[in-house]
Amino acid sequence: MIEGVLAGDRRAVARAISAVEDGAPELPELSAGLYARTGRAATVGLTGAPGVGKSTLGTELVRIGRGAGRSMAVLAVDPTSPYTGGALLGDRVRMQEHATDPGVFIRSMATRGHLGGMALAAPEAVRILDASGYERVIVETVGVGQAEVDVAAATDTAVVVLAPGLGDAVQMAKAGILETADVFVVNKSDREGAHEVVREVHQMLHLGAPRDWEPPVLTTTATQREGIDELWDAIEAHRAHVEASGALEAKRRARLLREVESLAAERFRARASAALAGDAALAGDLTERRIDPYRAAAMLVAMAAEAGAPDA
Amino acid sequence: MIEGVLAGDRRAVARAISAVEDGAPELPELSAGLYARTGRAATVGLTGAPGVGKSTLGTELVRIGRGAGRSMAVLAVDPTSPYTGGALLGDRVRMQEHATDPGVFIRSMATRGHLGGMALAAPEAVRILDASGYERVIVETVGVGQAEVDVAAATDTAVVVLAPGLGDAVQMAKAGILETADVFVVNKSDREGAHEVVREVHQMLHLGAPRDWEPPVLTTTATQREGIDELWDAIEAHRAHVEASGALEAKRRARLLREVESLAAERFRARASAALAGDAALAGDLTERRIDPYRAAAMLVAMAAEAGAPDA
Repeated sequence: MIEGVLAGDRRAVARAISAVEDGAPELPELSAGLYARTGRAATVGLTGAPGVGKSTLGTELVRIGRGAGRSMAVLAVDPTSPYTGGALLGDRVRMQEHATDPGVFIRSMATRGHLGGMALAAPEAVRILDASGYERVIVETVGVGQAEVDVAAATDTAVVVLAPGLGDAVQMAKAGILETADVFVVNKSDREGAHEVVREVHQMLHLGAPRDWEPPVLTTTATQREGIDELWDAIEAHRAHVEASGALEAKRRARLLREVESLAAERFRARASAALAGDAALAGDLTERRIDPYRAAAMLVAMAAEAGAPDA
Repeated sequence: MIEGVLAGDRRAVARAISAVEDGAPELPELSAGLYARTGRAATVGLTGAPGVGKSTLGTELVRIGRGAGRSMAVLAVDPTSPYTGGALLGDRVRMQEHATDPGVFIRSMATRGHLGGMALAAPEAVRILDASGYERVIVETVGVGQAEVDVAAATDTAVVVLAPGLGDAVQMAKAGILETADVFVVNKSDREGAHEVVREVHQMLHLGAPRDWEPPVLTTTATQREGIDELWDAIEAHRAHVEASGALEAKRRARLLREVESLAAERFRARASAALAGDAALAGDLTERRIDPYRAAAMLVAMAAEAGAPDA
């Protein structure tokens, strides 16, 4: 599988991403085999409420990127749900335009068994696409929850997509999404209310602290292919800016260290879970309210540190 | 503070919840002092997209609950954001109706410093309200992200609120929200499209596995106070059902064990973070791609287990 991914074999890439989804036992080996060949892809996050047109925008960015000679991958990130049939069907529809183009890879992703959820699974999947040679990786999220904001914030350039009539900027601010944006897009700009959304975003930006990079606020009508070139240029400009300033390297380093901490914490959680399952007395003391959660957690940390048991 | 909370002193309760928000060092002591006095409150989650009318529904449930002689608390849960002024202002507006009623407590909550985020902070805040004697605790969430679904799922009765024209049931299914619901409410039922939303929810429910409790699908117009009595009755009926069947005890036990595991994992993460910060060689090997994230995490687990350092 490692050789297949490095050689750009699509089926190997697809199987590797499935392994990430499942939290397969071969992940550490896969990670070790690919990691040295990562770091070349520029990653772009596309976040926004359901219905703003992220999928269409993503597909259009693929078209522009191909025109610019870039190989393009799209990873559509979906929270865990038994109902994933729709998203997978969507992949097939979206792939049709690029079905014969080996420079395009589009894939939905859920977390079925990966410890640590999407926040840990998505970066791994991105590294697979990166190691496989895709020069631009677009990470689309389904909604605007904290997990999805975290995933989008872990890209080099975070694009926040809004649209008229789909919840205002104040609601997005509450989700913590505005602070993470490098580029704003108001899609469906042919609809009534688009200018108001642009104005609201500018107002929100003025409330925040001044930044080294001032996020541009663009308008697009993805279904009419309007404004996509400008969006592509803004993404590339942001990337060039953070690369030149050193901010990209600092951001990547910080998120890598955080990711490793989270991986370690999840491994430890597996140990703690096993220790708690094996200690009926502690569980009983907890449920009978003889020991409070904080004290139980401290006991569990001590037990699991000694145990050194299942590193799942 | 512990005595104040147990005596039902509002200012002590407010300060205790602020301590949870901040992840204050006195939390373990607070938890130990209150835990034995918890478990009496019935907790209700109110989840749904921004704009469906959760706040109004929550306020109306408080009114009905007071009429039924119950003391009522509302915890409005907000993800981390520097912009929380709006929510707090909202509290004050909402409190006006109940300003002179000692049987009502309404409070917004963000996570400013709590390790583990809202999934760990919210249950602690609920226990404070529980220990303080509130018989019904309503936990409102701002959005429908995974973190918020988790918070709502950790209540005794999870109410999912929908409204016409605000994203369809398929979008909610993607967020994993339908599976967690014990009661569905289609609010703003005087608007066009309400019957379609009700029908969509019934269709989604038929796709799922049969359940011991079939979630009712109610309609309300909270601003007109229509359907609120029926909602209150449905919540009480669900609670009586799970209490009688033993499902409530099993659910509470499972979420308590999960919470303690998460607390332990977060404590461990603090150790791992300190270990990584103190090991420039490991961080360098990671960023230079000589050691991959999985191997680094395994090394970190071993280091942190030995260290036994800061149990933050």
